[in-house]
Amino acid sequence: MKATGIVVEYNPFHNGHLHHAEKARELSGADTVIAVMSGQFLQRGEPAFVDKWTRTRMALASGVDLVIELPYGYATAQAAEFAKGAITLLDALNCSSFCFGSEQGEIVPFLNTLDLLTDQRELYEQEIRRFVQSGISYPKALNEAYRSLLPSQTAFADLTQPNNILGFHYIEAARILGSAIQPLTISRLGAGYHDPIVSGVPIASATGIRQAISEGSAISEMVDFLPAASVEEMHHFLSEHHTFGSWDLFYPLLRAAILRDRPSRLSAYAEVTEGIENLLYEAAKNAAGFSDFMQHAKSKRYTWTRIQRMLTHIYTGFTWEQLKAFDRPEYIRILGMTHTGRQYLNSQKKEAKLPLISRAADLPGEMGAFDLHASYMYLLGLGASDVRKEFIVPPIYAG
Amino acid sequence: MKATGIVVEYNPFHNGHLHHAEKARELSGADTVIAVMSGQFLQRGEPAFVDKWTRTRMALASGVDLVIELPYGYATAQAAEFAKGAITLLDALNCSSFCFGSEQGEIVPFLNTLDLLTDQRELYEQEIRRFVQSGISYPKALNEAYRSLLPSQTAFADLTQPNNILGFHYIEAARILGSAIQPLTISRLGAGYHDPIVSGVPIASATGIRQAISEGSAISEMVDFLPAASVEEMHHFLSEHHTFGSWDLFYPLLRAAILRDRPSRLSAYAEVTEGIENLLYEAAKNAAGFSDFMQHAKSKRYTWTRIQRMLTHIYTGFTWEQLKAFDRPEYIRILGMTHTGRQYLNSQKKEAKLPLISRAADLPGEMGAFDLHASYMYLLGLGASDVRKEFIVPPIYAG
Repeated sequence: MKATGIVVEYNPFHNGHLHHAEKARELSGADTVIAVMSGQFLQRGEPAFVDKWTRTRMALASGVDLVIELPYGYATAQAAEFAKGAITLLDALNCSSFCFGSEQGEIVPFLNTLDLLTDQRELYEQEIRRFVQSGISYPKALNEAYRSLLPSQTAFADLTQPNNILGFHYIEAARILGSAIQPLTISRLGAGYHDPIVSGVPIASATGIRQAISEGSAISEMVDFLPAASVEEMHHFLSEHHTFGSWDLFYPLLRAAILRDRPSRLSAYAEVTEGIENLLYEAAKNAAGFSDFMQHAKSKRYTWTRIQRMLTHIYTGFTWEQLKAFDRPEYIRILGMTHTGRQYLNSQKKEAKLPLISRAADLPGEMGAFDLHASYMYLLGLGASDVRKEFIVPPIYAG
Repeated sequence: MKATGIVVEYNPFHNGHLHHAEKARELSGADTVIAVMSGQFLQRGEPAFVDKWTRTRMALASGVDLVIELPYGYATAQAAEFAKGAITLLDALNCSSFCFGSEQGEIVPFLNTLDLLTDQRELYEQEIRRFVQSGISYPKALNEAYRSLLPSQTAFADLTQPNNILGFHYIEAARILGSAIQPLTISRLGAGYHDPIVSGVPIASATGIRQAISEGSAISEMVDFLPAASVEEMHHFLSEHHTFGSWDLFYPLLRAAILRDRPSRLSAYAEVTEGIENLLYEAAKNAAGFSDFMQHAKSKRYTWTRIQRMLTHIYTGFTWEQLKAFDRPEYIRILGMTHTGRQYLNSQKKEAKLPLISRAADLPGEMGAFDLHASYMYLLGLGASDVRKEFIVPPIYAG
């Protein structure tokens, strides 16, 4: 059997994701599409809108054969670590390729970019430091440094675009890993990353969909943008939890965590650096809601996403020490599979480069314990009376 | 001027407290009654029913001239440390006496008991260890050890009674301190520590009053048991916060703190010992309310109060390390005064053995910072949108 991998969040799974899964299968010629998916917390530093089991069912209903979980420490990391975690898992499952959506839409510019930055690594890193020291945010510094190196040719990736950046890091991660996995890319369809929904246009951003629902739109109004299975799963989730995951919802517990730990302890959490703990602490004292909090906590030095990532780590209690102890993914956590996915897994029982884990009780080490913990903290934020759902939900089988 | 001290919680201030303040003045012949009062968290390991400012106003309206705050680390400690904190403060304010309510009602038996236990300290402590090792709780072990030493005479204090125990520790604390402060005691009137209210009987326990209100009684139904000023203050508090302080109310934030820290970090908090962190953690996973939680968390090894004290420290984030760094009170925090109280304070400007602190901003050191912090955490639990009330409320003057 032949598998291709995709790296996803599905927050929630929409028509753009359906297109991506179909194109990945087509372009790769694979019989199995494997999605590495973030768990309960996402790369932009947010709790997921719907839980990972719901998102797994959405995916299996719409073109994905196997869903595996990207461990917490990678799912909530900056692009390079996120990519390293995801590509390590796809490589461990012996995918022959991976396929990402990009603004670029062609693979050659990415390969040229990687060669350029590899050859000129030292100069590149000098330039990044120089731009960071000039006071701009890290992502902006990356881009400025890159532009300063760029020869006057067109066949390089445009690293101002969010999906190009991620794609670049996937390819780089595969090269660092020394993996034979082949990169593929497709053009992203339609909506930009944060665009609002437009009625009648079948592709909307996940952000736009979440925002419309948060502002009062009914799930049923999303039928233009979501596969039918996604609509149904959203209804199920809502009837169970009576709400969707968001910082607005989780804020009272986040606020208590910030106030309880005081600045002296806040600086122990991953990504919390350079005195921002004082800003977060002061903001928590009198901000009763999340948007009010962010108004107080925002800083020229950090992007919104970076601050949210700090907040995620504060909320879950994930420290620098834990972050540093995580070298690379230590297991393949199976969230769900179709019949084809199961066949592929059977073919990997001896071939997979990391242990295949189906049950929460088998999650190994501190990395496994933390995935379990992050899931507890997510369910707590949703208001669950029992947070141990991880032990109740077996891998989902969508025969 | 001549002052007598009393050690109080006033949760809330009721007719029994009024009697105590009046009798203390009478028995001591003092012109000033000084109350050392717990702040936002109490000795039984609970958030206060109403905040410290409200309780200060109640006291000043009903026979107390000066209210000072017992710092968090003492207010939430076991009897010996609680007593040490309180007596140190009364001594620092040069009270000539202190007066406590007891079941015993006479001072001589307490003095005999102290002499007996001082003379036989080593044997006493051996006996305590022996009883603790036999598996009974610490308070029970204290009592059993004491009984095993007791000569067959009647003039010793009965240390099975809660107020006698506290009284004994006050006297012991004064002796250890080498203070000239004189102990006085009065008989407690009427209701036992946890007795429910009885209509028409003017003395009810604070527990009984809180319970009746929590179960739906109107504040106005408490007029038999509370001075009019207390009734009015309860109304004010309720109109501001729409609720009263309790573990039931604070539980969602406590639960999040327990789950977030996992057993590995829980054991850092004061009073958390010998594996109980695992019991607390497991209980938090599926207990949606506080009474359900305590059903799961209770243990033969620990009293309910001891467990609540652990929970208070977990909730506020108060560690063993902080506890050990607190040697004795470092300042006299003034919460409020009458005209007489102000005159007494003026007489103490040069005489007081510790700095007199009126403003939150002047609270010194980590002990002062933690009193401020505990107040934030209390207001957060009440649902306050701004927790910085400490900076808004000046010392209360009830001229």
